[in-house]
Amino acid sequence: MTSNPTRRGVLGAGLAAGAAALTGRGAKAQAADPAITNLQPWNQALGDGVDARPYGSPSPHEAHVKRRNVEWLTADPVSSVNFTPLHELDGVITPNGLCFERHHAGIAEVDPARHRLMINGLVDTPLVFTMQDIMRFPRENRMYFLECAANSGMEWRGSQLNGCQFTHGMIHNVLYTGVPLRYLLEEAGVKTNGKWVMPEGADASAMTRSIPIEKAMDDCLVAFKMNGEALRPEQGYPVRLVVPGWEGNMWVKWLRRLEVGDQPWHHREETSKYTDLLEDGSARRFTWVMDAKSVITNPSPQAPITHGRGHTVITGVAWSGRGSIPRVDVTIDGGKTWHQARMSGPSAEKSLHRFYYEFDWDGGPLLLQSRAHDSTGYVQPTKDQLRAFRGENSIYHNNGIQTWYVNEQGVAENVEVS
Amino acid sequence: MTSNPTRRGVLGAGLAAGAAALTGRGAKAQAADPAITNLQPWNQALGDGVDARPYGSPSPHEAHVKRRNVEWLTADPVSSVNFTPLHELDGVITPNGLCFERHHAGIAEVDPARHRLMINGLVDTPLVFTMQDIMRFPRENRMYFLECAANSGMEWRGSQLNGCQFTHGMIHNVLYTGVPLRYLLEEAGVKTNGKWVMPEGADASAMTRSIPIEKAMDDCLVAFKMNGEALRPEQGYPVRLVVPGWEGNMWVKWLRRLEVGDQPWHHREETSKYTDLLEDGSARRFTWVMDAKSVITNPSPQAPITHGRGHTVITGVAWSGRGSIPRVDVTIDGGKTWHQARMSGPSAEKSLHRFYYEFDWDGGPLLLQSRAHDSTGYVQPTKDQLRAFRGENSIYHNNGIQTWYVNEQGVAENVEVS
Repeated sequence: MTSNPTRRGVLGAGLAAGAAALTGRGAKAQAADPAITNLQPWNQALGDGVDARPYGSPSPHEAHVKRRNVEWLTADPVSSVNFTPLHELDGVITPNGLCFERHHAGIAEVDPARHRLMINGLVDTPLVFTMQDIMRFPRENRMYFLECAANSGMEWRGSQLNGCQFTHGMIHNVLYTGVPLRYLLEEAGVKTNGKWVMPEGADASAMTRSIPIEKAMDDCLVAFKMNGEALRPEQGYPVRLVVPGWEGNMWVKWLRRLEVGDQPWHHREETSKYTDLLEDGSARRFTWVMDAKSVITNPSPQAPITHGRGHTVITGVAWSGRGSIPRVDVTIDGGKTWHQARMSGPSAEKSLHRFYYEFDWDGGPLLLQSRAHDSTGYVQPTKDQLRAFRGENSIYHNNGIQTWYVNEQGVAENVEVS
Repeated sequence: MTSNPTRRGVLGAGLAAGAAALTGRGAKAQAADPAITNLQPWNQALGDGVDARPYGSPSPHEAHVKRRNVEWLTADPVSSVNFTPLHELDGVITPNGLCFERHHAGIAEVDPARHRLMINGLVDTPLVFTMQDIMRFPRENRMYFLECAANSGMEWRGSQLNGCQFTHGMIHNVLYTGVPLRYLLEEAGVKTNGKWVMPEGADASAMTRSIPIEKAMDDCLVAFKMNGEALRPEQGYPVRLVVPGWEGNMWVKWLRRLEVGDQPWHHREETSKYTDLLEDGSARRFTWVMDAKSVITNPSPQAPITHGRGHTVITGVAWSGRGSIPRVDVTIDGGKTWHQARMSGPSAEKSLHRFYYEFDWDGGPLLLQSRAHDSTGYVQPTKDQLRAFRGENSIYHNNGIQTWYVNEQGVAENVEVS
């Protein structure tokens, strides 16, 4: 660190709105500037008409903005994961085409006309619903993040992956439309000894998990739309379970059955997988909630600073499975000094929040970190604090503080600081 | 109308959460029901892996969900419009691929590396910004509807188009990320006689409009992202103006220049076009704000009731350029009886709101209408009330109440009632 950047003053909205001194953001216009006097092709010719794309797609200049996988991570792409390009996004909505995917038997291509959802087990009347039946119940619209329990999992033993897309990209944030699960269960009539619900997927993996009845009757949705339109195939088209704030594996896709029981099922995906192995070889059972977490998305290893010193915008996302995020702190010196970030955009329970920290970069190296506070008062821990409690065997529920080192050229790297 | 449906009791969330009587939503499960005992192809085979679509797309079963134009409306698709399929959407977000398009010289295909934004005119220092320059200013995230002034314009003289996609589909609702226009103007320094701002587009139509400085300094954004990702080409990639609550034509796309002046320019698109021609042949100047409006999207002519009598969900959207929508009323009998609709989802200023009205359809004909109330107390008028003031010459700013007639078969039609 060549000097303490925090002493140089921070550019915030207040300063930007103040005196109009030239600050390096924008060049003085010159009458002969070819950038403005030269006509560009798009000034001179008609473009495509409205018939060209009945369903639109991004500009060819954005072709690099895509989900990516890590080829060495899994043996086969049908039971694998790819990652949301967080460093290319802003705001809090993840566009449907860029929501990370995780499937266990590939993307089931379900015909909605033939799809059925059954409720059975400890209910008064086992029921079978068509998609049209489901859409006759009252619907709700709520925005939630979905985070894979293994997000950041490869970082337990130290920094490995160079980019927030790979370290933190197993998350997306969507406005869902769906029927409260409670309405469907009440239609079937849950018996008094019905204490657990097991959703089952219609894909070839027949994913199952055990959900306590209290959560099922609280805020779960049986969702059929995401960000306004039908669910995407890789997100469970035509219908998925939404389990707000809880690990993504429970949000069963291609939902075909809901069984009500009096105890958990202890199936594969909640015993040999999706449990947290501790230092002593025992495993934590049922660690459902995704705790408060945040990450700086820009700058980051895939998104270096390319404009040189001066006004610099740091941005990132924060979330908590226990509520909203009233505050995020940012440090540029590895935690010596923390600054309260500016939040902008919708703030909803169990949903992504967007933060910004604007400062005047002196061109020296930076150690960037963010730290989320959630509405319960919980503060995001360091990775070392997590390891002290849980050892280094787990791959799930790593919500530790992430560090990026930025060098004098603006290039960022995944590092750890103690 | 065979009977008064309002006497039969209304199904709301309260009832759905109550006694678990069988209500026709879901069939009693039978052990031999082939719908649940037969394996489907997607239960038995692996689907596509995560490599298949780095940028995802909708299910092939949703291929009918698309923007559509009305071929007779304009002479050439490069200066035309297509329409958001409102009847296929839910919630309040319009997915980027389905946001209606309106362009005057086709879709400009702009290279962001070569694109420049200039501020000139009555400023202390004319400035030229690269895209990177713009992104060094503090950003904000806000959700806004964009409605074309001509939305519903073809309905001034009576019902014409059979579907809310065509009558009301020149609207979309997006979470924008951008820099407040104020910050850029203040960077250049607006002179004391600078009272108007003229944005200019970089496409071959070089769209221009006049915006009063008060609005420019209030809530306008210079936006580069929509729903998290880069603007789509047809929405102004790489940068557009956002003019919240005001007619869509002012939201200049492919924004290349902002000129500051001491009076409005009275260019073509605010004189011969986008002015409201009154009965006496005079025209209203500068009718910028989009007043409160709503429409029932389901059922509607493109989305009939297909499930027969019983539990029926009516849904639609409402918005106001003057604020939020605290209340929407729905009638099923052409205005004899109004019911307060249930709102669900984000409620933001100058943004779409989603409403629902659940009722028990007796199978008789219906006359469906919705009526928005905005946060200023303004109530959406009838079309006849609008005509009494403004005659039938205009095609702009029709925010009158829309009526759908639904017959005993559930088929809906665009009608007018007096």
